[in-house]
Amino acid sequence: MRLSKVLWQTYKDNPADAEVPSHQLMMRAGLIQKSGAGLYNLMPFGLKVIKKIKQIIREEHDREGCLEISMSVVTPGELWQESGRWQAMGDEMVRMKDKGGRDICISPTNEETVTDIFRKSVKSYKELPVTFYQINTKFRDEIRPRFGLLRAREFIMKDAYSFHLDKACLDKTYDVLFNVYSRILQRMGLEYRAVEADAGAMASSDQKTHEFQVLASTGEDQLVYSESYAANIEKAITRREGLDLLNSTAIAEIETPNMKSIEDVSNFLKVKQYQCLKALVYEVTVASKSFPVLAFILGDDELNELKLKNYFSAAHVAPASEELIKSVGLEVGFIGPSSKANIKTIFDKAINPESSYVVGANKRDYHLKGFSLKSIGSAEFVDLRLAKQGDVDASGKEVSVCRGIEVGHIFQLGDKYTKAMNVTVLDKNGKAQTPIMGCYGIGVTRLMAAAIEQNFDQKGIIWPNAITPFHVHFLLIGKSQEIKDIANGIYEKIINLGLDVLFDDRDAGPGFKFKDAELLGVPYQLVLGERDFLQTGKIKFNHRDGRSLGEIAINEIDNWAQELLKNFAI
Amino acid sequence: MRLSKVLWQTYKDNPADAEVPSHQLMMRAGLIQKSGAGLYNLMPFGLKVIKKIKQIIREEHDREGCLEISMSVVTPGELWQESGRWQAMGDEMVRMKDKGGRDICISPTNEETVTDIFRKSVKSYKELPVTFYQINTKFRDEIRPRFGLLRAREFIMKDAYSFHLDKACLDKTYDVLFNVYSRILQRMGLEYRAVEADAGAMASSDQKTHEFQVLASTGEDQLVYSESYAANIEKAITRREGLDLLNSTAIAEIETPNMKSIEDVSNFLKVKQYQCLKALVYEVTVASKSFPVLAFILGDDELNELKLKNYFSAAHVAPASEELIKSVGLEVGFIGPSSKANIKTIFDKAINPESSYVVGANKRDYHLKGFSLKSIGSAEFVDLRLAKQGDVDASGKEVSVCRGIEVGHIFQLGDKYTKAMNVTVLDKNGKAQTPIMGCYGIGVTRLMAAAIEQNFDQKGIIWPNAITPFHVHFLLIGKSQEIKDIANGIYEKIINLGLDVLFDDRDAGPGFKFKDAELLGVPYQLVLGERDFLQTGKIKFNHRDGRSLGEIAINEIDNWAQELLKNFAI
Repeated sequence: MRLSKVLWQTYKDNPADAEVPSHQLMMRAGLIQKSGAGLYNLMPFGLKVIKKIKQIIREEHDREGCLEISMSVVTPGELWQESGRWQAMGDEMVRMKDKGGRDICISPTNEETVTDIFRKSVKSYKELPVTFYQINTKFRDEIRPRFGLLRAREFIMKDAYSFHLDKACLDKTYDVLFNVYSRILQRMGLEYRAVEADAGAMASSDQKTHEFQVLASTGEDQLVYSESYAANIEKAITRREGLDLLNSTAIAEIETPNMKSIEDVSNFLKVKQYQCLKALVYEVTVASKSFPVLAFILGDDELNELKLKNYFSAAHVAPASEELIKSVGLEVGFIGPSSKANIKTIFDKAINPESSYVVGANKRDYHLKGFSLKSIGSAEFVDLRLAKQGDVDASGKEVSVCRGIEVGHIFQLGDKYTKAMNVTVLDKNGKAQTPIMGCYGIGVTRLMAAAIEQNFDQKGIIWPNAITPFHVHFLLIGKSQEIKDIANGIYEKIINLGLDVLFDDRDAGPGFKFKDAELLGVPYQLVLGERDFLQTGKIKFNHRDGRSLGEIAINEIDNWAQELLKNFAI
Repeated sequence: MRLSKVLWQTYKDNPADAEVPSHQLMMRAGLIQKSGAGLYNLMPFGLKVIKKIKQIIREEHDREGCLEISMSVVTPGELWQESGRWQAMGDEMVRMKDKGGRDICISPTNEETVTDIFRKSVKSYKELPVTFYQINTKFRDEIRPRFGLLRAREFIMKDAYSFHLDKACLDKTYDVLFNVYSRILQRMGLEYRAVEADAGAMASSDQKTHEFQVLASTGEDQLVYSESYAANIEKAITRREGLDLLNSTAIAEIETPNMKSIEDVSNFLKVKQYQCLKALVYEVTVASKSFPVLAFILGDDELNELKLKNYFSAAHVAPASEELIKSVGLEVGFIGPSSKANIKTIFDKAINPESSYVVGANKRDYHLKGFSLKSIGSAEFVDLRLAKQGDVDASGKEVSVCRGIEVGHIFQLGDKYTKAMNVTVLDKNGKAQTPIMGCYGIGVTRLMAAAIEQNFDQKGIIWPNAITPFHVHFLLIGKSQEIKDIANGIYEKIINLGLDVLFDDRDAGPGFKFKDAELLGVPYQLVLGERDFLQTGKIKFNHRDGRSLGEIAINEIDNWAQELLKNFAI
């Protein structure tokens, strides 16, 4: 593509509302344009990247016999009413009435539609398993859309749905899709981790779910991983090791004036922070009924609210107000286990009954030393703590924590939709059975953004080979007709050899051209500099990351192009 | 693709709501599934056809340097308010409020968005002309969606928009896109006509617009064409030739009791129908003010309401009620030109002032003979008649009328959007100019339906080569392991040679397999019949249209496949 013939607008400054690198760089490099809040238009070069991502996704799904379909973006309300989600879905789903007064919505996801397709098409176990997928537009009305394509309201997503008669069959397809997702991210050249994810309180313990996270320091998610374990921090179960126990001593009340923090108390008493217990009071809401809960964790641990929520199968949990804390007879800043307080009390599993701890005395300005869980009858132990760097996994391997961007999520759904929508299939004995489902989503537009979050420097994007908008950015630095003719000859030759080349033949200065090339981030740059070429007869070949890849003489161009092409057979 | 490995459901009966062949056949052949009123899911084989159509459209646009982009499906209301269409668009545009209380809509078309993209990207005449295009989902809330994909509410469309500084440049791009559309339809193997279309009353006379119509007896549109002319009947301007004039005679009042029709009167008076004038009274509404109009046309002509509407630049026109007719002093069934009646009166241009005519006498049960337009001062002549078979075009060539399905429409828009949205570009002299636009739409899902309306028989679809879901439908008729092994060998060989083959390896009878193949309509069928093959060593090669294309021996398969492949290099 000749830049003189194509409309491409780049920008020097970051847009005011762009907070993260991918958003800034996509806007500045003219890959996307904002249409409205959380709404983006894909411009020509951005669309080229999206098409390559789609193609990789298609090839990996087709290879496993998944069937590509395309469901309508607008779906009738009836289907959502049948599944019960017309009410249950949050207001991220945009609902409306059509001209005929019928409920319709813009699909945020497609479980209902695909289940309807399934029940209209499949009658017998002989046709199972089957996996449908589509690459389509979705809309979720985020209240605060931001981060560009990372959290847009309208986005392109690949969603797949599988149907099975039994769990063993679902497990098999789940593993196949797990591998499909792994290959997609590998082919895209991204560093990623597949991590165990939270399935929610309602999921049965054998329903698997994994997130696919692209590693990036700007990621919103935290991942906990070792050689043998990987989980979203929300879900991660790890242990602490090597903690020094405090010998049991007699309980003693100690004056700790104004010492409300673990730090103050541990310093004052010359104990380690984890030898103190941190008390947290939450208001837990289950089925619209709320009650307070007192949770203890080690002093230097944090509470994982999702674990608390799941333990109670709660609709939500929130730190209790001071009023609520006082109303159950506890003293803010000095809370300890109390048989008198009228409150459900739980202890994190990291708390060791063999050790004694410093705890609040439930009395202003006092703590207790020598408290042991043995002193209270039957303590309720729950895994409540947030995993952290230095913990060990179940097999004793130390874990690390890093940041990631969730680009994919796969779930075992069970019979939630098939049951609600009365779907049955005849089994081998001619008996009607409710099939079970898996669902598998990967964000296409989000993948483009995540790839940038992992691959950029201060000058711009550095595309992985598999999804770069062009193979080569060819810069002509020179103004004479002679050098222009040479450049044209090279351009024609290498596009005919199969390279996808962006040829900067514009009438502009070298600084301008290099800046644009660095911003756009095509990995390979070919620089034809008039002065150099007339002296040496060679063209410079560089990588966008700054490495020089050598110099090429005109008569080596064919070989060079054929060699380079191999880097894109991914 | 092996049919034993893929989910494909066909149906024997037409769905109750499917009135036209394409809708019936697409549903029965499992190409689409209904999701709701006017909402369809594309099933695997249907999606394959759509992808081929998209690919042809892309190639033809890319070849001319059009830039592919992808605009958001949901667009902000602000843009529509800026152009004035937030009010002006009918309620086919679904409008809603998002969670933040902002107006949004599901795009029925994208002039506003593309104009916004343009003004953010283009500042100088040097970057013009530019043509953007996209292939995307649209939604129009038709009150009575029907005919399947021919008039669905959600559909896939390619829309392109060009920008120019002057009319000469727009004309050039318009011609380029005209040729792009022609090549798309030619490559798809469809019989079509590009016809002049109605641009509406507001369009200036030099704003071109053409429709691309796929010929089909089931089409909703009527086309008027000769060797040198083609127009939608709504717009067609033709003449009548060889009409016998009636000599002028003295006006005479004749009793014509109860003869209210042209047929009755002409029979009774022994004149030709076109020697009588048909009187039509309309209520015409211009800018919310209504008035009656009396229009005369030749007795055997029909009135073209769109011509009437455009003549008055009316919002709408409708036949007047009897009350209205009486209120202006006319006698229903016996209306003639009258200086007394209080009504605007116009005459079709086919009425010849040199001839006399039979007209109503404005008196119950009476007509006048010998009426001549010369008798009334200055008659107002307007082209009002509907063109018909046997007319001649401006160059004297006889026209025919046929039916078509509008699949594409190209327009010259002028500065309607750029002006409303305050877009300017600097011209050569550094002066800000308002650019003008062209827009070019082609229906992707509608093209699939139109292709079927033109290519089917009572057994099913007969796909044109360019868009068939598979190149070859390979039927195995036989049950022995020996023949299955032979079939598998042939299948593997021909897919490796590059043919896209649907292999019916199902455990089903020949009748079942043939019926499915006829319904689906893959143009080439390869039939491996066990009995025949064991006798002759040959495989039958047929066209879906019923023609036998010969027999192929195993050792000829390679050559055969390579020859056949040439039919798909389109």
